[in-house]
Amino acid sequence: MFISFEGTEGVGKTTLIRKIYDYLEQQGQQVVLTREPGGTPMAEQIRSLLLSVNHEESMSNDTELLLMYAARAQHLQQVIVPALIAGKTVLCDRFTDASFAYQCAGRGLSKEKLQLLNANFVSHMPNITFWLDAPTELGMSRARERGVLDRFEQEKATFFEKVRSGYQELWEQQGERIKRLDATQTPEQVFEQAVAYLK
Amino acid sequence: MFISFEGTEGVGKTTLIRKIYDYLEQQGQQVVLTREPGGTPMAEQIRSLLLSVNHEESMSNDTELLLMYAARAQHLQQVIVPALIAGKTVLCDRFTDASFAYQCAGRGLSKEKLQLLNANFVSHMPNITFWLDAPTELGMSRARERGVLDRFEQEKATFFEKVRSGYQELWEQQGERIKRLDATQTPEQVFEQAVAYLK
Repeated sequence: MFISFEGTEGVGKTTLIRKIYDYLEQQGQQVVLTREPGGTPMAEQIRSLLLSVNHEESMSNDTELLLMYAARAQHLQQVIVPALIAGKTVLCDRFTDASFAYQCAGRGLSKEKLQLLNANFVSHMPNITFWLDAPTELGMSRARERGVLDRFEQEKATFFEKVRSGYQELWEQQGERIKRLDATQTPEQVFEQAVAYLK
Repeated sequence: MFISFEGTEGVGKTTLIRKIYDYLEQQGQQVVLTREPGGTPMAEQIRSLLLSVNHEESMSNDTELLLMYAARAQHLQQVIVPALIAGKTVLCDRFTDASFAYQCAGRGLSKEKLQLLNANFVSHMPNITFWLDAPTELGMSRARERGVLDRFEQEKATFFEKVRSGYQELWEQQGERIKRLDATQTPEQVFEQAVAYLK
């Protein structure tokens, strides 16, 4: 079982993932908790490049997309695929849907580029994806409270509106896999929404 | 004019590029000398990841290929395309042919993956490419003399044989663009071979 968690900044993904982790462990499952971009030492180095606000030059949109997939390829080979083969459940904070929402809907890159990368470099897709949806202002104010903002978090409100509508589009097209959770509710209520789908 | 230089380790690319640089400058051209992977501060950071021998895990072949193209996308946007638009001549130490030779012929990745990346992420191809060809043992002994070997230079002789045959295949298919230079000759003779093609 491969479960991914998606959403804009500050919608409560980390809190939900921890609750789901505890819930599945208590059911006797072996659970691997990981994240993107990152999840291996090398992929975390790529993450640092992606999130850094200290670059001397602006990162091209193509570079951003290809770095995301470079990190993803490493993460799949080192962590996700071995865990799934071993019968473990993988909980992943963001996966390919984030590339669609951020790099296509947000940055304006073509969907064809993304589909080519997915078809050629992504061997396993999540069985279920939880999209935590909330008005972007709510999440952005939570993100600001957490401290220094990374290269994505520093984007303007209009960028996050585009990202949110990208998730909306995916959810409308792939409702079998992607489940929308109302992230304006309390953490406990969001968890209960997710568990209802897992059951 | 966009000129790339290709070949396995230690065949004399750097020496030839410097001679061509001086030759074109003396002719009054504005010349930009650059290299791959790298060529911008951000792309050089990606280069460091690619060449480092200090990773805690082995880099997947897909990750290697995607990092190459992430660096290339940045290099194209920041350096190559602006220089070509400004009417300058670009001399580039390695370009897409190296990805074919090293990642496809050397590592065994499919040509289809490479062609997809070239078609979607490479806006400009070289007008002429010089392939410096020499027996791989010659180049490897030169590379060893230069000091500490990077992640590619540490590969076995069989890997470089595959890379060389990858270049051979490209040259046979794209002889209009790719010119083979006999790199067993002296630096001055190699330079004269190249100049004959440039004229």
